[in-house]
Amino acid sequence: MKIFIVGLGLMGASYAQKLTSVGHDVFGFDKDHNTNLKALNEGVIKGYNLKDMKDCELVILALYPNQIFEFIKSNLSYFDTQLITDISGTKTKLLDEVLELLPKSINYVSHHPMAGREKSGYDHKDVTMFKNANFLIIDSHHAKPHHIETIKKLGLDLGFKRQIVLSAYEHDELIAHTSQLTHLIAVSLMLMNKNEHTKDATGDSFRDLTRIANINEILWTELFLDNKNALIQKIDEFVDVLGELKHDILASNEVILKEKLKESKKRRISFDETNTR
Amino acid sequence: MKIFIVGLGLMGASYAQKLTSVGHDVFGFDKDHNTNLKALNEGVIKGYNLKDMKDCELVILALYPNQIFEFIKSNLSYFDTQLITDISGTKTKLLDEVLELLPKSINYVSHHPMAGREKSGYDHKDVTMFKNANFLIIDSHHAKPHHIETIKKLGLDLGFKRQIVLSAYEHDELIAHTSQLTHLIAVSLMLMNKNEHTKDATGDSFRDLTRIANINEILWTELFLDNKNALIQKIDEFVDVLGELKHDILASNEVILKEKLKESKKRRISFDETNTR
Repeated sequence: MKIFIVGLGLMGASYAQKLTSVGHDVFGFDKDHNTNLKALNEGVIKGYNLKDMKDCELVILALYPNQIFEFIKSNLSYFDTQLITDISGTKTKLLDEVLELLPKSINYVSHHPMAGREKSGYDHKDVTMFKNANFLIIDSHHAKPHHIETIKKLGLDLGFKRQIVLSAYEHDELIAHTSQLTHLIAVSLMLMNKNEHTKDATGDSFRDLTRIANINEILWTELFLDNKNALIQKIDEFVDVLGELKHDILASNEVILKEKLKESKKRRISFDETNTR
Repeated sequence: MKIFIVGLGLMGASYAQKLTSVGHDVFGFDKDHNTNLKALNEGVIKGYNLKDMKDCELVILALYPNQIFEFIKSNLSYFDTQLITDISGTKTKLLDEVLELLPKSINYVSHHPMAGREKSGYDHKDVTMFKNANFLIIDSHHAKPHHIETIKKLGLDLGFKRQIVLSAYEHDELIAHTSQLTHLIAVSLMLMNKNEHTKDATGDSFRDLTRIANINEILWTELFLDNKNALIQKIDEFVDVLGELKHDILASNEVILKEKLKESKKRRISFDETNTR
């Protein structure tokens, strides 16, 4: 398949490298010209001319969420029969804008690769990060069944394990919990710290819970704001549950505490059984 | 050195195995007699008679916090010139009780090995878990300098990297943040979940932040309740910081959000520079 990838940062470059390695004809473009030259020299892409988008079957927009709309708007003349997709971490706001902009004849199926790294940019590309990760595909009124199949195939080619199809709304609600709330928690754990000895009193739990506090502030500010409604609701739900645990501790509700921890253990073990990597 | 370890669960058995392997004469006792026999047969201990505590230089109480006081009280006649230590995860409440009970002539230096596993019991013993972890030693009016040195040496023999000496109060305040709060967060993330598709929409962040939600409910209920005051304060501080982030998101304070995420990134990178394992 002839594929064009717009944006050759961490994600776009990793997509390009992996898709090239499994035999696709991959073209790409980055706003940084040196990145284009490097990707071409390393054999990660076959060319970096935006015009090549015209006869590609698939165009992958590996841009920050806020750049996607602008890119499509500025390059509308290149789009015709291709299938367009994007990798944005939030979907409702983006698809509302993009699907409003696009003519009905243009094929668009959004997806979200549930994988990442703390470091960004072309030089940190790493095809192993997709292995056995989850791959979410967004169903919308623009998404035809055979195009959803194409995106499923893309996920398989990249090495993702499970392909789930869901609505933009359901996606954003789930992601608010599993991804955005978890990042806000990690950030809060780092920001609340006033004791210089904290680093000496840490075990694996603190290390694990704050790994993602090493965060890309530009991307995540966008993601938090784009998914504001779902995220605020998840913060409130989380603070409620934590507040109830605090109440149980204050009141020395030993029996209730043990029951809650047992339930947590049960859920986490069940999660691991279906979600090992 | 002749060492006696009381309790041959995950921690006690791992201590016994490691200390035997570096040449100490290790004796031990578990309330489960089959565990004693197994440990003896496997060469992890040289004997399991409590009377052997009498002529050991070091007695390590590898028991749940609430069992430590009872054990000392019931076995006071065995203690004389030995140095006694324990591995409890909270210190203020325990030491208040234990040091009140013990005659001034008895030597006691508490410590906290910042390492663990999700699974408990003798059969899950694993000497690798101590490698490069942090080791906290509690200074108190019972702790003589040369005894603190003995406990430092114990930490080195076990494979821990950094030995920090601090007061019981400072220990409990730090641990409330880095260990107990993080476990409550992981538990809350599992308990708040009502959507059966959550497991399909997870990346590494959710997996990392909920690993410790697979929690030993008996031990951690004790730890939460024993360290109630410090823990409640840390929950409140954390919820305040998260609440401010929520406010920034609600108000679309893009500039402030980016600044906070940058500060979080800076702190986490600095943490990693001093705390890699």
